[in-house]
Amino acid sequence: MLVSEMNRKECEELLARQSLGRLACAHENQPYIVPIYFASEPGRLYGFSTMGQKIDWIRRNPLVCIEVDEIIGATEWASVVVQGRYEEFPDTSEYAEPRRKAQAQLEKATSLWWQTAIAVTQTRKRVDRDMTVFFCIHIEEISGRHGWPDPAEHR
Amino acid sequence: MLVSEMNRKECEELLARQSLGRLACAHENQPYIVPIYFASEPGRLYGFSTMGQKIDWIRRNPLVCIEVDEIIGATEWASVVVQGRYEEFPDTSEYAEPRRKAQAQLEKATSLWWQTAIAVTQTRKRVDRDMTVFFCIHIEEISGRHGWPDPAEHR
Repeated sequence: MLVSEMNRKECEELLARQSLGRLACAHENQPYIVPIYFASEPGRLYGFSTMGQKIDWIRRNPLVCIEVDEIIGATEWASVVVQGRYEEFPDTSEYAEPRRKAQAQLEKATSLWWQTAIAVTQTRKRVDRDMTVFFCIHIEEISGRHGWPDPAEHR
Repeated sequence: MLVSEMNRKECEELLARQSLGRLACAHENQPYIVPIYFASEPGRLYGFSTMGQKIDWIRRNPLVCIEVDEIIGATEWASVVVQGRYEEFPDTSEYAEPRRKAQAQLEKATSLWWQTAIAVTQTRKRVDRDMTVFFCIHIEEISGRHGWPDPAEHR
């Protein structure tokens, strides 16, 4: 297998093609990962979540990491890592426009944007609107690597 | 979609079936995620890596998180999150037995265990044995959730 770095444009193209990633946050240096749906545009990602440990932790420490990959096979894959800063869009008039934009971008990226967030429990409790949050991740660093089969290995 | 918690046995069974996960570490509260191959046994996971930012960070802060999922479809999935503590197995006589065991478990779990670690660059530089490391993650917390289609939604 050969592995090389991806440039920024290649990383952004992968983010634009995908809508499922893994988000990590950290509290007192303990990291925590959850899968999330996201939408991307140059410089930022948008997401939607229910309240819970993830949002509690991120409100206290807005530094997050998102990893998104395309795994075609063991020797053919790409992985992009974003380090960024979380900004919450509260349900207030001041944030009406950013919330509308986040929702529109998420709907464009995936019809599933609300699926991992709205965790309907087995008892089918109703999800309260106050229990959900739109947010944006401002991209501070982005890097990626991709691997592909080495023709020399198959000679 | 319905979502419910997985019990410890269900979480361990998923870890035993899978060998590809995402590992997060944190440095000064900035989390960082990389895909890794792993092997599991009750109470711990084994991994193999080349040196790099991930190992630099983990040596300074051994608290890590590993997320492993099975995504069959948007409404049929399972995700397990492990919080644990990293222990490195250096290439010394004292660690010969743990290293042998880690390698044996990794080989049993996946023929690909060395693939993401040995990042052969485009220039095909040789990978030095001193540049690789076997490690173990002692599981301190484990939790999981799974989702499946809600029959009521399709009536």
